[in-house]
Amino acid sequence: MSITLDYHLQELQFKHPFSVAGNTRNHTPSVLIILKDENFTGYGEVTMPPYLGETPSSAITFLKKVSFSGITTATTIAKFHHYIDCLDTGNNAAKAGLDIAFHDLVSKRRNVDICSLYSLPNEKKASSFTIGLDTPQVMLEKTSEAEELGFHVLKVKLGGLNDKETMRLISNFWKKPISVDANQGWKDPAWSLDFCHELKEMGVLFVEQPFEKSNLNMAVWLTSRSPLPIIADESCKRFTDLEVVKNCFHGINVKLMKSTGLFEAHKMLTYARTNGMKTVTGCMAESSCAVAAMSHFAALADWVDLDGPFLITNDPFEPVKLIEGCIQVPRKIGIGVELL
Amino acid sequence: MSITLDYHLQELQFKHPFSVAGNTRNHTPSVLIILKDENFTGYGEVTMPPYLGETPSSAITFLKKVSFSGITTATTIAKFHHYIDCLDTGNNAAKAGLDIAFHDLVSKRRNVDICSLYSLPNEKKASSFTIGLDTPQVMLEKTSEAEELGFHVLKVKLGGLNDKETMRLISNFWKKPISVDANQGWKDPAWSLDFCHELKEMGVLFVEQPFEKSNLNMAVWLTSRSPLPIIADESCKRFTDLEVVKNCFHGINVKLMKSTGLFEAHKMLTYARTNGMKTVTGCMAESSCAVAAMSHFAALADWVDLDGPFLITNDPFEPVKLIEGCIQVPRKIGIGVELL
Repeated sequence: MSITLDYHLQELQFKHPFSVAGNTRNHTPSVLIILKDENFTGYGEVTMPPYLGETPSSAITFLKKVSFSGITTATTIAKFHHYIDCLDTGNNAAKAGLDIAFHDLVSKRRNVDICSLYSLPNEKKASSFTIGLDTPQVMLEKTSEAEELGFHVLKVKLGGLNDKETMRLISNFWKKPISVDANQGWKDPAWSLDFCHELKEMGVLFVEQPFEKSNLNMAVWLTSRSPLPIIADESCKRFTDLEVVKNCFHGINVKLMKSTGLFEAHKMLTYARTNGMKTVTGCMAESSCAVAAMSHFAALADWVDLDGPFLITNDPFEPVKLIEGCIQVPRKIGIGVELL
Repeated sequence: MSITLDYHLQELQFKHPFSVAGNTRNHTPSVLIILKDENFTGYGEVTMPPYLGETPSSAITFLKKVSFSGITTATTIAKFHHYIDCLDTGNNAAKAGLDIAFHDLVSKRRNVDICSLYSLPNEKKASSFTIGLDTPQVMLEKTSEAEELGFHVLKVKLGGLNDKETMRLISNFWKKPISVDANQGWKDPAWSLDFCHELKEMGVLFVEQPFEKSNLNMAVWLTSRSPLPIIADESCKRFTDLEVVKNCFHGINVKLMKSTGLFEAHKMLTYARTNGMKTVTGCMAESSCAVAAMSHFAALADWVDLDGPFLITNDPFEPVKLIEGCIQVPRKIGIGVELL
């Protein structure tokens, strides 16, 4: 059946100013993607954290290149992904938005969810909740929100000036699992290794992206010595990055906006799992649309980090729910959410 | 129809010791790939120049991972390529061998050639013939072989100690087109720019890979100033490399053993052509199998550099021919050659 494409720019508002090492934002742009055939509607979204280089303008320029003249809901996902990937280099988030919407449309037409599409068990794993970078005392206070929302795992953003103090405060208070994300903010390998030993004592699960993304020598040094898994985030976007990254890190954080969507995320997660790497399914600051889509890959994740919709106040979609700390989508077909 | 895979290690013997900057060889390993269904046989080959890191052993390890239980000749090329690409990272040449053989088998079954499979016109463009690195006088003498074989274009390997003298000698003698390949051998940007101006005066077509592959700053510097197109070879293997390479070079040399085969080579060439980049269809030291396959993409190339079979003495395939300087395949179906 023939498909039409529509899209709208929207702004997702943060509950709290959102900080990672080197960056604070109050809202983030998102482009809503709508694909329709005669009976069904598929939803996708493009979110664009500033450090990835995409903007609403670049996303819309990319979307204008898309023609559905040779594409139907009978087109294989491999062929659809190849088509959108060929339209331009980069534009990973814009490609992800289209990929998510096409998955939603195709699985609705087949009356299945994303797990069924990939023959995956519908597993649930507890998602972490992000504590943005701030003073140690403020970060400690923020953990009460994770508690109130019902999260069982914290993800603490580090790479600030008081990382050790922050972690001592938080780990004394929060007795459930914690992961740590330095967002490229650490500078000193020996200090980092020493801190990893301390974090291990605190029961931390893993350490994400300690050093600047292209500094792979430092990553190799720490990975070969660290008592905790060292996970690549900014250092790893697409499948082809794994050729180098697999030799530098213990694992990868796969995010749809980096990977060009579900098709390639599945390829990365499957490869990593079958080759002894740890996997995280992560998200940007994004709505229930992209998070619902990714939540279907929990069976391929060692750890889930899908708190995006819990960080924003104006989710345009039926919200995903948190049940026993795990993301649950409200519907059983497609990605599992509809536009409100 | 169900497909079986067979493969054999072979050694391709060079007519002359083959030199590029930093490396001399007398023969090169190649793995012959044979895919069969009930009626047809598809051929592919894996060639492994040492600087790309693949070996007969790594190729055979990769081939042992392949199962055709879910693949038939009705499987789309996009889906087949995705399947083999997922089996491991890297292994680009091994993937290329499978991709070529699958293209050959599928197009034989449909009774078409590779051009038809991609809706491309069956254009012919003159291929260059490689003059390996040696003393200026020996390199000059080698041009007589290009003349005897009927080539209309030379590709001169540079990156040695006497590049200027070599080019002055050769350009005085050879009055047809010449291209130049420094194979990462140049060190000094200002010297390179000066030489590019001199090469322009000599009628040179383009300059390939002047600097070390990861030194993109020097590439950008020269590309923004050079009167001749600067072409990436070692700096560009797969489609995802284009995101960076398009901003650093005027064009790319696409080779099947780098690109994982015809499927992704087509994607790279099409992208480059529609985005104002120059394109070369190139080859490794390889037989008529892979060269015949790539020769079908002449319509997507500004320049063709497919002399591999003319550099070896034991081509296992019906040889491609040179007609008016252009590669011609002996058969009209599939990649266009059969195993002898």
